Amino acid sequence: MAVYTEVADEELRAFLARFDLGAVLSLKGIAEGVENSNYVLRTEGGTFILTLYEKRVREGDLPFFLGLMEHLASRGLRCPLPVRDRSGEALGRLAGRPAAICTFLEGLAVRRPNAAKCRSLGAALARLHGAGEGFALRRENALSLSGWPPLAEAAGEGADRVAPGLRGRIAAELDALASLWPRDLPDGVIHADLFTDNVFFLGDEVSGLIDFYFACNDAFAYDLAICLNAWCFEPNMEFNLTKGRALLAGYGGVRRLEPAEVAALPVLARGAALRFMLTRLVDWLNVPPGALVRPKDPLEYDRKLAFHRRVSGAAEYGWEAR
Amino acid sequence: MAVYTEVADEELRAFLARFDLGAVLSLKGIAEGVENSNYVLRTEGGTFILTLYEKRVREGDLPFFLGLMEHLASRGLRCPLPVRDRSGEALGRLAGRPAAICTFLEGLAVRRPNAAKCRSLGAALARLHGAGEGFALRRENALSLSGWPPLAEAAGEGADRVAPGLRGRIAAELDALASLWPRDLPDGVIHADLFTDNVFFLGDEVSGLIDFYFACNDAFAYDLAICLNAWCFEPNMEFNLTKGRALLAGYGGVRRLEPAEVAALPVLARGAALRFMLTRLVDWLNVPPGALVRPKDPLEYDRKLAFHRRVSGAAEYGWEAR
Repeated sequence: MAVYTEVADEELRAFLARFDLGAVLSLKGIAEGVENSNYVLRTEGGTFILTLYEKRVREGDLPFFLGLMEHLASRGLRCPLPVRDRSGEALGRLAGRPAAICTFLEGLAVRRPNAAKCRSLGAALARLHGAGEGFALRRENALSLSGWPPLAEAAGEGADRVAPGLRGRIAAELDALASLWPRDLPDGVIHADLFTDNVFFLGDEVSGLIDFYFACNDAFAYDLAICLNAWCFEPNMEFNLTKGRALLAGYGGVRRLEPAEVAALPVLARGAALRFMLTRLVDWLNVPPGALVRPKDPLEYDRKLAFHRRVSGAAEYGWEAR
Repeated sequence: MAVYTEVADEELRAFLARFDLGAVLSLKGIAEGVENSNYVLRTEGGTFILTLYEKRVREGDLPFFLGLMEHLASRGLRCPLPVRDRSGEALGRLAGRPAAICTFLEGLAVRRPNAAKCRSLGAALARLHGAGEGFALRRENALSLSGWPPLAEAAGEGADRVAPGLRGRIAAELDALASLWPRDLPDGVIHADLFTDNVFFLGDEVSGLIDFYFACNDAFAYDLAICLNAWCFEPNMEFNLTKGRALLAGYGGVRRLEPAEVAALPVLARGAALRFMLTRLVDWLNVPPGALVRPKDPLEYDRKLAFHRRVSGAAEYGWEAR
């Protein structure tokens, strides 16, 4: 749940005057998006999402994110389409923050996806990977291998306050992944944060993907590994192989995985688990007093990481060669 | 900002099946309503507000609140209209809580209303008082004179931890109001919580009133006194007489105030200030650890109360006899 920036009605009216969306009818702050402030905006022109970018999103990255959504939407992917103002700009300023208006996507985010939804999600992820082709801008993945040691350092001794031995486990994992991490896998634009709250469904079919604010250029299979972590574990941290199969089959039905990608899945899944453990850990240790946002539990990913360390091959995630 | 009850998509679908609203298209938790969980709900039938009633609203009061909104809407007041299901019921259960769907009202809540908005608000309040006539149910105001001493007791010594001498000031005020409180003023259904976040505007005109969950039977002028407190003070707690004039003139243009009501305004304003100070104080002293809701500052009303104590007549609020 985001902490909202207050938007005064005069400011909003002035901001909207640059767009061909008619007069504002209503604005409601919504509990969506942890990094930014989001609102459902209704104008005479329709229903939209207004996003105010808070300080965790680097302003210099916004042209990449907004340009990417426009590129993906133009390739037929269902994602928010940034609305340009009369001068052709999608990015403006409101209440002292960078701000953009995007189209509203119908659909419901689900907390506990069934296998059918995992299959549809896999197919949507593969379509996203295809649709990103030809996008002109690049953005390195700041939260991949080289980004993890600084996070581990930032957590420091605090890790052991969260769970005994955690600091040592992190150090060992960093060492292991530094030597095991795959190079030269097929790559392109990845979402890099495709958790269940970023995927909308109508019935069991994906109706839209949102929140591209971690998108970057990296190995496609790493995105798949993130989804295995985020979609296929049960609340008790047991891996649901049926969901894993559905996710991988859904993906494979749209984009054929290369043998090197399949072979790399266990290591990529470890890396993805470590990445979310580390960012959650740093957030956990740095909750400001009086914060309205409750940080996510880093230990969930400590347990997922332990699972991945014991995996010997992609079949244990449900991979079935055809 | 509300703490949201999670609604699973299967539950939502089952709940909606009772209504003639078509399939669900989207559901977004919104930062509106402190007491309940509210969502913007889009279905094939349109856009609505779904409310889940949390524990601070007594379930036995819901027929009064929902029936009142229906009564007021049928009299032409712009307020949420509860949607009845096929069996004629507006109140159902969802995610283990009482729940209702209401029509969506366009308009923007404003944090800093100008005088024109105060005038429109005054007129809307008077229309509300007229529209409530003939409503069959009654609900006593649990937060009037007899409800304050238990709140003061609940705060107890904690009051002096919030501000030195506060406990004594509260006790003195309770004594004074017990003898000064007016009886036999014109009464009927009042909103009793018409703060700026409960009033929507399009331009400077009121487009809708929401959140009737403190509505009750009490003196009309007490509702006006609440609005003087909530709408006419500047952030530095100075009273803006221009706004007071506009509010009172807007009200008086629709419903004529009796001399006894005018005379009682200063005492009613003290009572209203004490009422909000006390409930905020109790909330302030009872924030559970890890709460996501930041309580409102009770001392704002300590300062407003000090202002009201020095008022000698309604003219100091901007009342102008015509």
